[in-house]
Amino acid sequence: MMIRYPNGKPYKAGTEEVQKPKKKQALKDINFGNRGKTLEDDLNETNSYYLQRQIANIHKKPVPIQIVKVEYPSRSAAVIREAYFRTPSTTDYNGVWNGYYLDFEAKETENKTSFPLKNIHAHQLEHMKNVILQKGIAFFIIRFSRLDRYFITPFPIVENAWQQMEQGGRKSIPLQQFEAQAIEIKPSYQPRIDYLQAVQQFVCESFTIMENTQSEEIKRD
Amino acid sequence: MMIRYPNGKPYKAGTEEVQKPKKKQALKDINFGNRGKTLEDDLNETNSYYLQRQIANIHKKPVPIQIVKVEYPSRSAAVIREAYFRTPSTTDYNGVWNGYYLDFEAKETENKTSFPLKNIHAHQLEHMKNVILQKGIAFFIIRFSRLDRYFITPFPIVENAWQQMEQGGRKSIPLQQFEAQAIEIKPSYQPRIDYLQAVQQFVCESFTIMENTQSEEIKRD
Repeated sequence: MMIRYPNGKPYKAGTEEVQKPKKKQALKDINFGNRGKTLEDDLNETNSYYLQRQIANIHKKPVPIQIVKVEYPSRSAAVIREAYFRTPSTTDYNGVWNGYYLDFEAKETENKTSFPLKNIHAHQLEHMKNVILQKGIAFFIIRFSRLDRYFITPFPIVENAWQQMEQGGRKSIPLQQFEAQAIEIKPSYQPRIDYLQAVQQFVCESFTIMENTQSEEIKRD
Repeated sequence: MMIRYPNGKPYKAGTEEVQKPKKKQALKDINFGNRGKTLEDDLNETNSYYLQRQIANIHKKPVPIQIVKVEYPSRSAAVIREAYFRTPSTTDYNGVWNGYYLDFEAKETENKTSFPLKNIHAHQLEHMKNVILQKGIAFFIIRFSRLDRYFITPFPIVENAWQQMEQGGRKSIPLQQFEAQAIEIKPSYQPRIDYLQAVQQFVCESFTIMENTQSEEIKRD
């Protein structure tokens, strides 16, 4: 009888080391652990988990649509027949956790060594800056999808990189910087991506930043 | 030279009292002050005002849509050709103000004496209950459109009325109850509906309610 791995490949005793594909190939062809799910799926699952257990109330915002034409067929639901995607004016996720307003954007990259800043839009940074002025907590969830690694990244890290780019600096944030400055979350079963664990870690630090920003604002006024 | 009112009607000195239409007629035909705007327009204006002046960061969520078919004509934007409206799982508005998470639903009624509870969905109440458990602030903005009166109504008032309805009680909240228990906001020029003024008034009270709920939750666990 042939024994098979869960992925359908036959198991041959003692040959594992030999059969292991070259590292580069493996990362490219096999999706370790995440079984084809997108970051959005992961976060929807996580947010449902938080909601059901009354840990937090965080939702993804619907995609903004400009509706042009709607038909009302008799005896059935209204059908949208012409509509266009609009540019979102905010981030994708927000909600409340233990009295804190949370606001974040989730992005994934296929890149294995750095996160390209072209994935982020200026208006999102503008929005998050404003969130922090209002004493909310703003951050990014960055997934390196080929490495299946997730980094909860406070807003100032991305903002600084963006400012440097605008002054002619590099157009991406290196993986090493995430390793050094962001909080890595290992995906698990339930909840899938326990990002609140990371938020809890940087909540005090963020508040210090926020209070400094606030007092600067007051001085400026 | 004929002098005219802003609405185009000619001004006749001394005839104002005589020309005034009967009260019932007036309320039905003339939209006092609000010039045909919906509550949504009012709130969008108000939220832009708050955002521009860094007072708060509150947004309306896009309408959730189930997209079925998208066309990609060459050289132009993607067109959605088949899509359906989905039931929202949350309220329409949320955001952050001075460290507080705010979450509200805006409803208007043509009724002049009471607000029919059929305008509210059970899942919205469920969501708001959860917001309060997370120490957020949940409320309703109710507009009596024919009276052009706006009431900022804390969640517990609507929740109590809903519970009474479920036990066979009345299916609406009388205007008098809003006058007694909610905070009325007079529409003005800028901001259009200054609801944060009202939120500020009930923020302390809400926090007491929240803390009581929280300790009950802890006891139950």
